[in-house]
Amino acid sequence: MPGKKIDIFDTTLRDGEQVPGCKLNTKEKIELAIALEDLGVDIIEAGFPVSSPGDFNSVREITKVIKKATVAGLSRAVQKDIEVAADALKYAVRPRIHTGIGTSDFHIKSKFNSNREDILKRAIQCVKWAKNFVDDVEFYAEDAGRTDNDYLARVVEAVIAAGATVVNIPDTTGYCLPHQYGEKIAYLVNNVPNIDKATISCHCHNDLGLATANSIAGVIAGAGQIECTINGLGERAGNTSLEEVVMVMKQHHSLGLYTNIKTEKLNPMSRLVSDTMRMPVQPNKAIVGSNAFAHSSGIHQDGFLKDSQTYEIITPEEVGADGSKIVLTARSGRSALAHRFQKLGYQYTRNDVDVLYQEFLQVADRKKEVEDDDLHEMAKQYKQHTVEV
Amino acid sequence: MPGKKIDIFDTTLRDGEQVPGCKLNTKEKIELAIALEDLGVDIIEAGFPVSSPGDFNSVREITKVIKKATVAGLSRAVQKDIEVAADALKYAVRPRIHTGIGTSDFHIKSKFNSNREDILKRAIQCVKWAKNFVDDVEFYAEDAGRTDNDYLARVVEAVIAAGATVVNIPDTTGYCLPHQYGEKIAYLVNNVPNIDKATISCHCHNDLGLATANSIAGVIAGAGQIECTINGLGERAGNTSLEEVVMVMKQHHSLGLYTNIKTEKLNPMSRLVSDTMRMPVQPNKAIVGSNAFAHSSGIHQDGFLKDSQTYEIITPEEVGADGSKIVLTARSGRSALAHRFQKLGYQYTRNDVDVLYQEFLQVADRKKEVEDDDLHEMAKQYKQHTVEV
Repeated sequence: MPGKKIDIFDTTLRDGEQVPGCKLNTKEKIELAIALEDLGVDIIEAGFPVSSPGDFNSVREITKVIKKATVAGLSRAVQKDIEVAADALKYAVRPRIHTGIGTSDFHIKSKFNSNREDILKRAIQCVKWAKNFVDDVEFYAEDAGRTDNDYLARVVEAVIAAGATVVNIPDTTGYCLPHQYGEKIAYLVNNVPNIDKATISCHCHNDLGLATANSIAGVIAGAGQIECTINGLGERAGNTSLEEVVMVMKQHHSLGLYTNIKTEKLNPMSRLVSDTMRMPVQPNKAIVGSNAFAHSSGIHQDGFLKDSQTYEIITPEEVGADGSKIVLTARSGRSALAHRFQKLGYQYTRNDVDVLYQEFLQVADRKKEVEDDDLHEMAKQYKQHTVEV
Repeated sequence: MPGKKIDIFDTTLRDGEQVPGCKLNTKEKIELAIALEDLGVDIIEAGFPVSSPGDFNSVREITKVIKKATVAGLSRAVQKDIEVAADALKYAVRPRIHTGIGTSDFHIKSKFNSNREDILKRAIQCVKWAKNFVDDVEFYAEDAGRTDNDYLARVVEAVIAAGATVVNIPDTTGYCLPHQYGEKIAYLVNNVPNIDKATISCHCHNDLGLATANSIAGVIAGAGQIECTINGLGERAGNTSLEEVVMVMKQHHSLGLYTNIKTEKLNPMSRLVSDTMRMPVQPNKAIVGSNAFAHSSGIHQDGFLKDSQTYEIITPEEVGADGSKIVLTARSGRSALAHRFQKLGYQYTRNDVDVLYQEFLQVADRKKEVEDDDLHEMAKQYKQHTVEV
């Protein structure tokens, strides 16, 4: 595989699991963690150990079964948080502590009632605390999306000097436009002297529907890791969809980026998460929605039947979805109708189909979707009709 | 309002309605059309008149009730289609015929078994046919996203010369990256001599989760119209979400773009479409999902309670959503718990909350969400406990 490898950091079990209604028990979390490792994610963020005894226990149990992937635990820039996270991760083959602090003026003033110099010190301190326990320390600069670039660069340089191996630049409120987020990453690449000693990570929220585009803008600009969740679950409008960023990189070879995700497992993984968290995926969700490979307009169906590439850029098999569907509705054309009759075993001429198509439109205007049973009934009536006349 | 007005072309009733399961009857379509006009959309694509008698009738009935918005009817580059569309639109105050043909080599070869010169002639011809009936003719260059820019510019120049008032550049398969789509629009702005005589329109599909970003890249590069649907409904993974592109432009004043959408009607409109089409919106959908303004992690809740801007870039009122929700789960912190107890009428000290918080975590680890009833029960137990000791 040519090009640059992008690490996939899955936070379904942390940013996804903290969503209203998505809470899982330890057994369910272990099941998902194993499936995520099997999918090929590089880092599994397993939880936020200090937040509750249940979460601590889940993180610890997950570390016992995960052998290849890195397991990360979240913590605030608080000594006790970090100690608890380290304790929860002590059986991990590849442990990572993910710690950090808000760096935007909004966060510094409203949340911490502090100032930039103090926050810079606390950022350095939390990385040093974490380094006492693990080699692999990721620092997050919360609300980096609204953080002044010059100050952000100072913080990033300082935490790398303190030992951070990964620097996470979250667009916490989903505020950035893609070109702005890309420029922010490029600014760090160009203005942080020791940036080559760490991996830059993208963590983008979807409040304006731009999380996927922002993450891709980030890796184009030089980031080496994307934080994301299955089905785009996460706080508020959610996090970046793993399935979307992975398929963007897979489809666009010109980017020269690749991941280790086994894309044919994407749809089964999406269903497992949706079922376990009881969180529905809308039919028109990219890659994993039930309609993602359904064609219903006549123009589309006709083109698709001639060459699937006319309307599909991804094959359903590539992402483990059921085969493309041709759904017969009032928008379907003659070619789709003829194709379905043929599949059902009827041999009709073009003239037959022309006559049947008028009848089909009557049925379709009454019904949402014309089913095979309706076609058998139409075929039966048509035969009687042609015999009679 | 400063800056450039961007026209919002809603195709919920055409691209959205052709989705499997979304078919509506005429009465339902009229209801949605009236609501769309009330929302402030500039153009309502009401249907594809030649596709069925039911659709023809719906388009006609919609034209009788819509007084301010333009009503568009879709057609292929086929004389009969255009005549039928014109007939369906004959009562419209502001009729628009939306006609066109595939211009990518995929479409030219696989769908039409034709060549570029022939397709160019057919493109010119369909605009001329439509011009016999209406002044306002929009031409779509289907699969423009995969069409060679030089050929696309020739087609666009020719159809504008033939009278097209709007040129639609669809990324039919949802293939483009934002910078690529933006460059395509910029190419047309810079290389089509008569481009100032028409409005460029963006029509982006969401197969890779990039529809919103691509549409925004398009208007940044000079397009003047976005085609979109409520809730992002549309073929396969859907079309561009109206609510997302509108709020991106509203939030980012630096773009200098605005629309006439009454944003406080976005959530009611989303629910009306979801209910009428029986098409669920996932909780983590931007702007209109049920969790779009829900905060559940302790870190977020604490910051949000200090200043909502810490985690919210849009107020729920601005988009007609119910107020922000603080959901109590095992990820919630002391400040959210204290806030809820206070709302329920309990006056607790910091020490009280510290003790109650340990009990709360036990309950929260067992349950997905801690309800007010659970808190009342905890308060009752706590009172007994403090009295006893």
